Amino acid sequence: MSSSTNQAPTFSEKKATYDEVLRLALERGFFFPSAEIYNDAPAGFWDYGPLGFLMKSNFLREWRRRLVNYDDMLEIDGSLILPKIVFEASGHLSSLVDPLVQCTKCGNRIRADKYISEKTGLQIDERLSPEEFQELIQKYNLKCPNCGGELGKPVKFNMMFRVGVGAENDDAYLRPETAQSIFVDFSRLSKTMRVKLPKGVAQVGKSFRNEISPRQSVIRLRELIQAEIEVFFNPKSPFDSAKLEKAKNVKLNVLSFPYSGEAREVSFEAALKIFGGMDIIAYYFVLLQKFYESVGFEKANTRFRELSPSDRAFYTTSAFDFEVKTSLGWIELVACNYRTDYDLSNHARMSKKDLSVMDGEEKIVPHVVELSLGVDRSLLCLLVSYFIHEQDRDVLKLRPNISPYLAAVFPLISKPEFQVKARTIYESLKKEDIPVFYDDSGNIGRRYRRMDEAGTPFCLTIDPQSLEDNTITIRERDSMKQERIPISEVATKLRVLREKEN
Amino acid sequence: MSSSTNQAPTFSEKKATYDEVLRLALERGFFFPSAEIYNDAPAGFWDYGPLGFLMKSNFLREWRRRLVNYDDMLEIDGSLILPKIVFEASGHLSSLVDPLVQCTKCGNRIRADKYISEKTGLQIDERLSPEEFQELIQKYNLKCPNCGGELGKPVKFNMMFRVGVGAENDDAYLRPETAQSIFVDFSRLSKTMRVKLPKGVAQVGKSFRNEISPRQSVIRLRELIQAEIEVFFNPKSPFDSAKLEKAKNVKLNVLSFPYSGEAREVSFEAALKIFGGMDIIAYYFVLLQKFYESVGFEKANTRFRELSPSDRAFYTTSAFDFEVKTSLGWIELVACNYRTDYDLSNHARMSKKDLSVMDGEEKIVPHVVELSLGVDRSLLCLLVSYFIHEQDRDVLKLRPNISPYLAAVFPLISKPEFQVKARTIYESLKKEDIPVFYDDSGNIGRRYRRMDEAGTPFCLTIDPQSLEDNTITIRERDSMKQERIPISEVATKLRVLREKEN
Repeated sequence: MSSSTNQAPTFSEKKATYDEVLRLALERGFFFPSAEIYNDAPAGFWDYGPLGFLMKSNFLREWRRRLVNYDDMLEIDGSLILPKIVFEASGHLSSLVDPLVQCTKCGNRIRADKYISEKTGLQIDERLSPEEFQELIQKYNLKCPNCGGELGKPVKFNMMFRVGVGAENDDAYLRPETAQSIFVDFSRLSKTMRVKLPKGVAQVGKSFRNEISPRQSVIRLRELIQAEIEVFFNPKSPFDSAKLEKAKNVKLNVLSFPYSGEAREVSFEAALKIFGGMDIIAYYFVLLQKFYESVGFEKANTRFRELSPSDRAFYTTSAFDFEVKTSLGWIELVACNYRTDYDLSNHARMSKKDLSVMDGEEKIVPHVVELSLGVDRSLLCLLVSYFIHEQDRDVLKLRPNISPYLAAVFPLISKPEFQVKARTIYESLKKEDIPVFYDDSGNIGRRYRRMDEAGTPFCLTIDPQSLEDNTITIRERDSMKQERIPISEVATKLRVLREKEN
Repeated sequence: MSSSTNQAPTFSEKKATYDEVLRLALERGFFFPSAEIYNDAPAGFWDYGPLGFLMKSNFLREWRRRLVNYDDMLEIDGSLILPKIVFEASGHLSSLVDPLVQCTKCGNRIRADKYISEKTGLQIDERLSPEEFQELIQKYNLKCPNCGGELGKPVKFNMMFRVGVGAENDDAYLRPETAQSIFVDFSRLSKTMRVKLPKGVAQVGKSFRNEISPRQSVIRLRELIQAEIEVFFNPKSPFDSAKLEKAKNVKLNVLSFPYSGEAREVSFEAALKIFGGMDIIAYYFVLLQKFYESVGFEKANTRFRELSPSDRAFYTTSAFDFEVKTSLGWIELVACNYRTDYDLSNHARMSKKDLSVMDGEEKIVPHVVELSLGVDRSLLCLLVSYFIHEQDRDVLKLRPNISPYLAAVFPLISKPEFQVKARTIYESLKKEDIPVFYDDSGNIGRRYRRMDEAGTPFCLTIDPQSLEDNTITIRERDSMKQERIPISEVATKLRVLREKEN
């Protein structure tokens, strides 16, 4: 069983293009635009269909195993709507803004920084002031890309969605990151769960950003799924030496700032230097890299890219993007931020509550290292990396631990005795919580092809011999090789195969 | 192992009150008010802490097993923000309204129907017109309950949260039910998944309702979690006889309208008559009742209550609430609605798309039976039913299949040889995806008590004998009995115990 698709494809293999992957996603029901039956439904909202839902569940299962549970983190599930004061404290109300400019003639609205950068080739900091954007627009004599009209005065456009709560229509916002729930809940968590630092708190959920130009399907969404981890720690205390012991033999791919050439594979010690000696950062980067390796992104195709001061989010003093190399270029999957005590201190100040905790004898406001993972784009990048054209077929070569179905069950022939037996196996696998699909329509070759496109790594077929000796054939997706095994061993075999490469 | 807590407690047992349950939820981190560090955070938003998150995950796992996967449904995950036209089509924009009346003196806003009903003892239909509400207010000379001032003119207050999308601030809404994503996606699902009717489509996710008076913690929320199932079917085709065969021996507790006395336990056939002969309704009610029995609500304490025409939601022609009897009274957990082809037909009309599918040779717009389950209130009702005061301890006697942790691992003594061994078992159980907790602080009695309150059914302790013969003691929460088993059998034993009562 090989999943060597992040290496160069062989002569008869070719990676599908982004457009082909998108067609797969739409036609097989991985994901598709929300409310698409309505022609003018807004962009940036996508729904997961059944295959996408299952793949997402499997991806998050691995994330929990290799990060949340492995590291004994706490997981919470917080409200999406939070009162205005939370975002006054966090700074999002004043700082989560895009520079927007509108054409005075046709009304077209565009992102000032992106447009200036596109037209001039300059690196433009999105945090310039409206006046600075206006100067650049005048200097380079830029006009509306739509109608050639004059561009108006740039403004700061807040990317949070406002909602009015209650009959009084009180100001609240859909959270732009899941992190803030974790910060405002931290005080209660530290008491109820008797938290000892360092401690990670995790959350999976929707976040919302009113992007001016959503694009690339699920890469830049207005409603996105994040899997975030905030690790609370005392910067003056040494990090857990037993944990470091387990991580220190792992090498990391790092591209440090200022950039010179490609990312380099560096030892844990060398990485530590780049991280200003913060071993907690090195440790969680190791876990993150290993998680992504387990779902199919080889280390050689990933990197931790240090952000320049002007590219960092407003709440962070040190930031790395975990990126993966795909046919779409390098795509950011995880924003890794050292947020210091920025958030807790601001919430303490605004709420007038004491949010400090005890660390041994010391009373401190903990610092935070964050791994903010984009679930949607991670799944898209996996599809882009693993959807392969072979000579005679299209195959989605996802690893068994994240493919939507682990197995399919077919009766070779559409006769009751085959169907009943196949159905019985199908039902028994379902009972064991194995994601499995049953199909008895069309010829067997077509059924295999459909499962190849759905990424199903194993197809089980009830054939005439099965009726005699209680065996079943198991066909492996990538090699297309079949072997015959006793039906009684199927569930165990599938479980072993799922974990095999991890 | 008994979970007899829905029966009368014995002399030394007493069910906790709602207030005590709420204190448990807050102090142990099941759930707590969102953004609670801010004094004026709006009501109706609650966060799940680590124990609540785990309990919710386990509850949904059983729901998937016993409904979604058992019945081969499709599960999707759709956007929470949907464009205005979706709710024009669905009718929510005009009909999801509360009658609101404001005091002309102090500005206090109240629900007209609730207030009139409270003051007069009359049954008031919330769908009366503003004029009818005004007549009632005048007839009974009702004043502001706050300041005694004159009440103004009643208005219809829409309960959806509006959000403005994009730089143009286009009208969109947070969905008030997950169902609409399923309806607008149905056309694509039916094609991509080669759907044959009848077919259930499921979705778990947040829904939003701008309640004027959120109350009773997670019973009436502004942001709630629904687990919804929409079953698409052809009303003219007979329902699957093999499925009916498996369900027809189950009796249902039904309270039909008009009400006379209590719910009666009726046979499948008798239930069918109440459901107007719709066997599809009887079949899914059986699955639903069995699911709730599996998580701990005995049939004797639940009922399907038929709603009067004036109590039904605007989109339904026949409706039953699945309710459970608790110390809070009968609580609605699931709204079971026959939505006919109302939603699909309206979306077809508004989108000008053909949303019909083939059923055999017939082209139809499918009808829909819905099971709309409230996750938050289901969890609260479980806590209310299972949190017990005993003579010397408080115990949360949740069934093992939904308790947050299935097991805890303790070293009896805080010495390295005990800790290392306990830790090893803990790590191996985590690897098997068993929710497990490790604790080595405080005396063993206190650790047992903490796990009693967290609902953990099994505590595993490493004692001196464990170091000699690789055994461990397993202590059962409800009986407090201990037995000694080989460490090698722990994972298997726990799995068996988890499924035992189901």
